[in-house]
Amino acid sequence: MGRTQVICTASWVEGVDQWRKGSGKGWVTAEYGMLPASTSSRKPRPIAKPDGRGVEIQRIIGRVLRSVVCFKKLQERTIYLDCDVLQADGGTRTAAINGAYVALVLAVKKKMSLGLCPRGVITGAVAGVSVGIVDGKVLLDLDYSEDSGAQVDMNLAMTSKGEFVELQGTAEQKPFAPAELEKMLAVGRTGIRKLIQAQRRAISQHSLHP
Amino acid sequence: MGRTQVICTASWVEGVDQWRKGSGKGWVTAEYGMLPASTSSRKPRPIAKPDGRGVEIQRIIGRVLRSVVCFKKLQERTIYLDCDVLQADGGTRTAAINGAYVALVLAVKKKMSLGLCPRGVITGAVAGVSVGIVDGKVLLDLDYSEDSGAQVDMNLAMTSKGEFVELQGTAEQKPFAPAELEKMLAVGRTGIRKLIQAQRRAISQHSLHP
Amino acid sequence: MGRTQVICTASWVEGVDQWRKGSGKGWVTAEYGMLPASTSSRKPRPIAKPDGRGVEIQRIIGRVLRSVVCFKKLQERTIYLDCDVLQADGGTRTAAINGAYVALVLAVKKKMSLGLCPRGVITGAVAGVSVGIVDGKVLLDLDYSEDSGAQVDMNLAMTSKGEFVELQGTAEQKPFAPAELEKMLAVGRTGIRKLIQAQRRAISQHSLHP
Amino acid sequence: MGRTQVICTASWVEGVDQWRKGSGKGWVTAEYGMLPASTSSRKPRPIAKPDGRGVEIQRIIGRVLRSVVCFKKLQERTIYLDCDVLQADGGTRTAAINGAYVALVLAVKKKMSLGLCPRGVITGAVAGVSVGIVDGKVLLDLDYSEDSGAQVDMNLAMTSKGEFVELQGTAEQKPFAPAELEKMLAVGRTGIRKLIQAQRRAISQHSLHP
Amino acid sequence: MGRTQVICTASWVEGVDQWRKGSGKGWVTAEYGMLPASTSSRKPRPIAKPDGRGVEIQRIIGRVLRSVVCFKKLQERTIYLDCDVLQADGGTRTAAINGAYVALVLAVKKKMSLGLCPRGVITGAVAGVSVGIVDGKVLLDLDYSEDSGAQVDMNLAMTSKGEFVELQGTAEQKPFAPAELEKMLAVGRTGIRKLIQAQRRAISQHSLHP
Amino acid sequence: MGRTQVICTASWVEGVDQWRKGSGKGWVTAEYGMLPASTSSRKPRPIAKPDGRGVEIQRIIGRVLRSVVCFKKLQERTIYLDCDVLQADGGTRTAAINGAYVALVLAVKKKMSLGLCPRGVITGAVAGVSVGIVDGKVLLDLDYSEDSGAQVDMNLAMTSKGEFVELQGTAEQKPFAPAELEKMLAVGRTGIRKLIQAQRRAISQHSLHP
Repeated sequence: MGRTQVICTASWVEGVDQWRKGSGKGWVTAEYGMLPASTSSRKPRPIAKPDGRGVEIQRIIGRVLRSVVCFKKLQERTIYLDCDVLQADGGTRTAAINGAYVALVLAVKKKMSLGLCPRGVITGAVAGVSVGIVDGKVLLDLDYSEDSGAQVDMNLAMTSKGEFVELQGTAEQKPFAPAELEKMLAVGRTGIRKLIQAQRRAISQHSLHP
Repeated sequence: MGRTQVICTASWVEGVDQWRKGSGKGWVTAEYGMLPASTSSRKPRPIAKPDGRGVEIQRIIGRVLRSVVCFKKLQERTIYLDCDVLQADGGTRTAAINGAYVALVLAVKKKMSLGLCPRGVITGAVAGVSVGIVDGKVLLDLDYSEDSGAQVDMNLAMTSKGEFVELQGTAEQKPFAPAELEKMLAVGRTGIRKLIQAQRRAISQHSLHP
Repeated sequence: MGRTQVICTASWVEGVDQWRKGSGKGWVTAEYGMLPASTSSRKPRPIAKPDGRGVEIQRIIGRVLRSVVCFKKLQERTIYLDCDVLQADGGTRTAAINGAYVALVLAVKKKMSLGLCPRGVITGAVAGVSVGIVDGKVLLDLDYSEDSGAQVDMNLAMTSKGEFVELQGTAEQKPFAPAELEKMLAVGRTGIRKLIQAQRRAISQHSLHP
Repeated sequence: MGRTQVICTASWVEGVDQWRKGSGKGWVTAEYGMLPASTSSRKPRPIAKPDGRGVEIQRIIGRVLRSVVCFKKLQERTIYLDCDVLQADGGTRTAAINGAYVALVLAVKKKMSLGLCPRGVITGAVAGVSVGIVDGKVLLDLDYSEDSGAQVDMNLAMTSKGEFVELQGTAEQKPFAPAELEKMLAVGRTGIRKLIQAQRRAISQHSLHP
Repeated sequence: MGRTQVICTASWVEGVDQWRKGSGKGWVTAEYGMLPASTSSRKPRPIAKPDGRGVEIQRIIGRVLRSVVCFKKLQERTIYLDCDVLQADGGTRTAAINGAYVALVLAVKKKMSLGLCPRGVITGAVAGVSVGIVDGKVLLDLDYSEDSGAQVDMNLAMTSKGEFVELQGTAEQKPFAPAELEKMLAVGRTGIRKLIQAQRRAISQHSLHP
Repeated sequence: MGRTQVICTASWVEGVDQWRKGSGKGWVTAEYGMLPASTSSRKPRPIAKPDGRGVEIQRIIGRVLRSVVCFKKLQERTIYLDCDVLQADGGTRTAAINGAYVALVLAVKKKMSLGLCPRGVITGAVAGVSVGIVDGKVLLDLDYSEDSGAQVDMNLAMTSKGEFVELQGTAEQKPFAPAELEKMLAVGRTGIRKLIQAQRRAISQHSLHP
């Protein structure tokens, strides 16, 4: 993801929102933000006016991460996944998904090691990657300059078994054909595999008791 | 789209936003709202707290409709596409795309008939449809009860030539395989074809001078 | 009311707001909105900046409709009356009052037919009409072009017995004399009578079980 | 107005809002607020949530005061009339109208004395008073305890000639008949006369050069 | 404090905020506002955009007044100290502190006289004063014109024993030396003594039963 | 500052705000934020409700940094200093001041090296440090656990010559005497000296052309 840097944290909070109370089930919610100096021209903080792009992205991150959590086992707790972009160079939303997954797993493992959470809360592995068509060629993991000139911009979230969790593609300059879609999905799949390995390394190398 | 009803309007406004001024190019922007009584339990107006789902949807509608507009020919004008849901029964976002396209074309045609807009502003036809997997079967155009129980929920926006403009799929219950994706895309394609015909009828039957 | 179109809905919600809890009494509240394309030049949605005119109007609608409801019989329930203008051509506030009354009565009747609401919640009939002085003449039910040029603009809400529920008059260009007020009230009274008949027809023709 | 206290100020600002620019005409706008401790139980400041009642009142104040100003003579200037309630004991809106009129006239006189404003900006005198029916009797100028128990609550703004500028009546408990309206208007008229005299005294006693 | 006028009120409210519930302890919170016409050029109300300066000031007022209250004896009650500037001529924040102290003591005394509050809630006296360096000289209690040209602007809150509660100094034009600080503190101390006497007079002269 | 981590950035933007236009002078403004997971219990983002503490802090940071900038030499440009707390362990406001100074100097140096900014924009060195009294002892640079239990909490911003730029002290538990103030200032002075050296090292070690 080029020089993109995103801090991803998981905060474990006892209890759930009003609409979920009494269900016996937990919830996972994501928030996405960008520091003002993370972009090349300063981006004002979203105080007066909410940031539509950020809202769209955090909804996607939340959906993807919820797909690998068993809410019944989590019980009535909320896990907040905060993804804050320190430096943006393309791929911030997929970087956020990948980092949030690692943060989520580490948080659950830590609670398990303290006997505060049963087995089976995390039901699988998921990673996200961008694919695009630039100058007619399918590229994996676009950085900012590639992204800006892409004809098609696609974001994939997939499991370790190559199945889709979320799939979102936009024709930036002209519509794309089914054959192009297929090429992008194939390229994306190889990226996902590497990312899931990288997540596993990050998780296993992390010491839970600092 | 079941009993869904969405009012779609196009408002033609001279001038563009600050960031676009001096470019010689126009812009198309979409807004999506739901009347409080459009849903089975009343939905409060998004005054105190913005509606994240609505923000995500209006960004998709805007992207799709911008893909069939030549901004250079539009010149420095803004077309607002307002999509307001009167009654929601599944498929409101694709209904909004389809209606907004009709409104957009009629607005441009009206301006052309008055000599206020050159040819070629609209560069193609686009329609949107939902596809899903319910009880293991691929269904086209899900209504509310089907949508609630869907394992996969996918929204497609495609051109009359069967090419993709926007593609967005979410695994609601479990990840879906590439073969399932392919089936959904094939089913979606047939739906798009019918919708583009329906749009054409709506456009041709509409008298521009009431 | 010219070409004015307002969707009026009544939403029946169990429970009341904090300040009313434990009183054993219900409440009726109205909200008034305009779709962006309901006016000849597009009206932005009231997100950043609340719409003062809309706030004033919804307060009047609420007061008028509360005057024909027995809160003790309604018990601790809230009825939301949403009035959303699809097309504005003068008289939107009185159109909203008239439509909201019909929606309110139908909602109560439906609940009664299901055995969920006692008799006597609705205590009377009320309708609203505008009167004005245009070019020195008293006019009933002003449309937009008449309204814009009116010297006096008056809105009346009256019962079927010709008594006042709400009375609001504004001198737009010059103050008006008591004799002019009397003429306007007389003209208004005839309008109210016809509107109450129209409301009765709308209520009796409506089938409660669709 | 009982123990009600309202600070009314007029601020003279060169220039007008965007929508009025280039018209050669001025504008008068009113704002109404209540200090938190002005009411018997503390009223939170309207920061998170706008105060609907206050919005309705300030719109009425603005309309009434605009009716006695010649905008053409005022030229492109804005006069802000701020009415802030220090202590509320009924009649705050009519107290605000009366005080705002005095502030407005003093501001214009001061500018005239400095040669910065032509003659004829103020075109007449206007005052506001409340009338109500309490226990079946028509009362002038209700204080808080009378207002709370009123069957009808009416606010009048009238000129020195006994003509109406704004008229707003609400049936709080049961509708009121035309004969009751007439009685209230007659009683209100006598109040207006005294208030206009009081305003004149306040204006003439005020020294413009402190 | 020159021609500065600030209304300070104390509102006694049973109960405390969520975070304080069950602690058995009370809280004191301050709010600071300026009427739009309190400054020489009109200051818009802080509705759309919060007033950063006001937020900073109200936090200081709250901290200072909390330093002389025993929350345990106050029990689970909240005292709101509202400080609203009617006219600003320098020193509004210290005027607010001084007036809020008087209001606080009177409120507690009134409750004590009604047997609704134990002894010992107020634990001491505190006053606030500004000191500054203008044209190289140390001045006590700066008015607006002095404040605008000050090289150093300092606000002190001290007890009757000459001890510090809050101390806040800002170099407006150039940094100040320790010796200058000492001079300012000495001058401030004499001011505090007089202000505490003035507060005592105001408290003793006030009749609690109007 | 314990385990506190704050990202400080300087963004150089051509032009100034409306109120400063045409003055020929620049401006420096600071914003302070905390990531949700920077505190031990998650802190919600300040969207619905602004963060009063953060507003107070960013105003102090801005004042301190403006004291070392020559606005005339900066010309009509705005430098935004964004200070975002990644991890909070006491002293975040002084950490922000120290980091913001380094960011400011580096930004100006970079512009100078490109010939886009004259000499003399930065007029001096400034650093911030906290001092407090804990268990009767004066401590320099309090971490979170020390800060929580402090009797007095003081923040100093001083120049390399030991002069004061900003001085802000609060009695958390009981008022403090002049002798205690003096001790704290002396201890603070030694801290400032070390911090200014650390800032110099950070500035000189930074390569401007990455």
